[in-house]
Amino acid sequence: MAQIRHALNTTRADDFAAWYQEVIAAAEMAEESGVRGCMVIRPWGFGIWERMQRLLDDRIKATGHQNVYFPIFIPLSNFEREAEHVEGFAKEMAVVTHHRLIAGSDGGLVPDPDAKLEEPLVVRPTSETIFGDAMARWIRSWRDLPLKLNQWANVVRWEMRTRMFLRTSEFLWQEGHTAHADETEAREHTLAMLEVYRSFAEEDLALPVIAGEKPENERFPGAVETWSIEAMMQDGKALQAGTSHYLGTNFAEASGMKYQNREGGESLCHTTSWGVSTRMVGGVIMTHGDDDGLRLPPRIAPQQVVILPMLRDKPEDDQLIEYCEGLRATIAGQHVLDEPVRVLLDTRPGKAAAKRWDWVRKGAPVIIEVGGRDMENGVVSVLRRDRLWDEQTGKPAFQTPTREIAGQTVPDILADMQSAIFIEARERREANITRNVTSFEEVEKFFSATRHPGWVEVQWAKPTGDVLDKVIERLKEHKLTLRNVPKDAAPVDGQCIFTGKPAVERVLVAKAY
Amino acid sequence: MAQIRHALNTTRADDFAAWYQEVIAAAEMAEESGVRGCMVIRPWGFGIWERMQRLLDDRIKATGHQNVYFPIFIPLSNFEREAEHVEGFAKEMAVVTHHRLIAGSDGGLVPDPDAKLEEPLVVRPTSETIFGDAMARWIRSWRDLPLKLNQWANVVRWEMRTRMFLRTSEFLWQEGHTAHADETEAREHTLAMLEVYRSFAEEDLALPVIAGEKPENERFPGAVETWSIEAMMQDGKALQAGTSHYLGTNFAEASGMKYQNREGGESLCHTTSWGVSTRMVGGVIMTHGDDDGLRLPPRIAPQQVVILPMLRDKPEDDQLIEYCEGLRATIAGQHVLDEPVRVLLDTRPGKAAAKRWDWVRKGAPVIIEVGGRDMENGVVSVLRRDRLWDEQTGKPAFQTPTREIAGQTVPDILADMQSAIFIEARERREANITRNVTSFEEVEKFFSATRHPGWVEVQWAKPTGDVLDKVIERLKEHKLTLRNVPKDAAPVDGQCIFTGKPAVERVLVAKAY
Repeated sequence: MAQIRHALNTTRADDFAAWYQEVIAAAEMAEESGVRGCMVIRPWGFGIWERMQRLLDDRIKATGHQNVYFPIFIPLSNFEREAEHVEGFAKEMAVVTHHRLIAGSDGGLVPDPDAKLEEPLVVRPTSETIFGDAMARWIRSWRDLPLKLNQWANVVRWEMRTRMFLRTSEFLWQEGHTAHADETEAREHTLAMLEVYRSFAEEDLALPVIAGEKPENERFPGAVETWSIEAMMQDGKALQAGTSHYLGTNFAEASGMKYQNREGGESLCHTTSWGVSTRMVGGVIMTHGDDDGLRLPPRIAPQQVVILPMLRDKPEDDQLIEYCEGLRATIAGQHVLDEPVRVLLDTRPGKAAAKRWDWVRKGAPVIIEVGGRDMENGVVSVLRRDRLWDEQTGKPAFQTPTREIAGQTVPDILADMQSAIFIEARERREANITRNVTSFEEVEKFFSATRHPGWVEVQWAKPTGDVLDKVIERLKEHKLTLRNVPKDAAPVDGQCIFTGKPAVERVLVAKAY
Repeated sequence: MAQIRHALNTTRADDFAAWYQEVIAAAEMAEESGVRGCMVIRPWGFGIWERMQRLLDDRIKATGHQNVYFPIFIPLSNFEREAEHVEGFAKEMAVVTHHRLIAGSDGGLVPDPDAKLEEPLVVRPTSETIFGDAMARWIRSWRDLPLKLNQWANVVRWEMRTRMFLRTSEFLWQEGHTAHADETEAREHTLAMLEVYRSFAEEDLALPVIAGEKPENERFPGAVETWSIEAMMQDGKALQAGTSHYLGTNFAEASGMKYQNREGGESLCHTTSWGVSTRMVGGVIMTHGDDDGLRLPPRIAPQQVVILPMLRDKPEDDQLIEYCEGLRATIAGQHVLDEPVRVLLDTRPGKAAAKRWDWVRKGAPVIIEVGGRDMENGVVSVLRRDRLWDEQTGKPAFQTPTREIAGQTVPDILADMQSAIFIEARERREANITRNVTSFEEVEKFFSATRHPGWVEVQWAKPTGDVLDKVIERLKEHKLTLRNVPKDAAPVDGQCIFTGKPAVERVLVAKAY
């Protein structure tokens, strides 16, 4: 096997964190903005997010939700109403205190002391309280229920240590807020939205996830139950990729969200909320990326096929472009994965080889190069991003079908790739979950053994309060966290590894982002 | 002619401002949020905005722009760089000064004095300066130009007097930012985007607009030229519905946006910016609304056809719903105005007549009612929103085609309505522009004569500086403003009505929102 010269400087094995940053820079996805903790999302990164939005929005609408828009500012007093909620969020919020600037003594601008707000406004970290106010106004009787709303918005949580896409002070997300007549329906809806997230992650992003309930200490502030989908990154760490909360009547009580029930009496609503964010883009990078850059599942690739004519700044270029345009039109006229194929003919100035590697680093699923000789022979050179290298020669694994065959088969390659990279990721995850650990010492041993150890599934007695606190602390010493209690775990058959009591469920233990 | 009982309490003629508020409330488009100057956009209002976004986004992408996302926070120092820009905006910005809250002496929350930001952050009122920083990093040579970016975002301008959609402290918009190698290309692009806005307004929103250059005093702070599209509301006032700015090298200089030109030297970029906002929703209401509520151009109606079975809470309901579902499927299977028809079968609880008037007020283009007797006769009752009343009887002008005919013809009705309401609005506007006014006294007389007087086009010498200031002041006494200098105006042939000098162009004078 020949030596391969990869397109990035850093490999995953060498330094996973540095590799992650290099993928983002090399694929021109995002960069630091210079504004504390905020990033600029560049066209390729934002194009991926737009694809995710479109696909998830369709799923959210298909389950009966309507989109709305609520103010970015929330009065302080709203937060004071739900005690656990404010406790959870007050520590990391951006606070607006003035509404005007004036020239200061040194000539620069300063907040105008005469324009101080009577009540400071918080830049929303999440919108339960302000949705609650409006939903309480809109809901009169059982006929108005369920009320199922969603918004796409920017939110701000002041973060001390930031990492692009994974943890930024401002991020983009959707937040769903629903009200229901009773607990059963609200709990069912919490799980229904978890299932929407699971299918979105697995079918659209090709991210295998484990859906389950978060332990008590990881609950959303003010929630009765928090559920999550957890994905395994290539360094073995877990990424919480989406959460769905059953809020009981906590927020309904805080905002007076009542309705006239069928018997004519008055009842409190039961509410849910759920969200996924630009963090998922980080999950895609760390699940599918390789030492040559990003690899994108075709469903979320802004361009699925890129055609690169090898231009030479000569009159013959026109003929080559025409030949490529014919291929582009053939491919663009077809559908795959329920949509027209997205194909780009890249005729920008620049060397073809440099452009090829740019598109490899960006993770375009299929790259087609066409040179003058290819045209003479009626063929094209097709490179599939998930099978980039010929390991025998150490060179890119180009296939050279005729232009006609390429036009017909490219959609099939895309469909195949969508499932191939999902299967690849799922197999890797399954190989890295260890399920028969029966003591905490084994857990410790497992996580000290290798650099990328994956997850451990253990049985536990679901302790609460002080006992749980001690479990958390003990895990923390090894930088470990409880991820979730998988919905589809096997039945218990042993003891709690923390307390020795009879186990009641299985829980995942892992390092996490 | 019989007396018509309209669906709203207020007519346009009685009180246009109160009518506007009633349409918004009755159509459940938006409401005050309780947060100063911010509104909640409800599902129907947001659905309209989503339609607008989709259509305009397609036009923006078709002209070679890519979407990005920049931080909501802009450091104060950015604003200090462009003198006119800061002068124009510093007076109305939300300022973030702290990043944490703590419990205050009275138990409530207060900004934590220990978490005061070293440099306050401004919530973006517009993003020229922060785009400029990044574009300066990304542009190296002429090969990187033009750079054509756009973002959909929320922005904040602290407003003292707010009116829903028209003027709110927070609003939603898109802002395009482009960089070009030279002045000619940048000026052409400014006008190309103005044309995108004109065609979007006229073809998608059915809003007739006049495209032209804003006079000097109405320029965007920091711009060399500002162009606008102006629409006439039914009270005769003008609404600036979109602007496109040629910024010269002002912002490029402030952010060091230079490139290596083809000759190997270094040149400053020429930049443009342009935006339209949720304000356009207000323009749609005030152009197309009538005394029965909103009327929506089919292209932006979240639902174009609403089918209302007259349910009676009896077993026969099932058969009626099945009959309606057949119609729904027939209509949904067709395309009109380049998209599949959006049709809703509304089976929510509630009386059919009440639901009909709800949909009339919301402006659904076509409402189809189906009762038990209709089903027996194989017919349905079709109501077209722009021809709501039979003026002879004073009753809703239902047509009763067979279900089959209705299924076939509804798409045609939608296509017809899209152009009919545009023509109606354009004729009204043309009837209300007075073009042969030759003195300021005539202007004064015109605007004092009636309550809804429309616009006046006058010839002027395009004064600047002090002379212009006096013109503005004189107009202000009558609450009048200069709107724009129409691109397609007739040639001049007279004197400036303000200075008596030979006229150089024609300019529109109007009251405005």
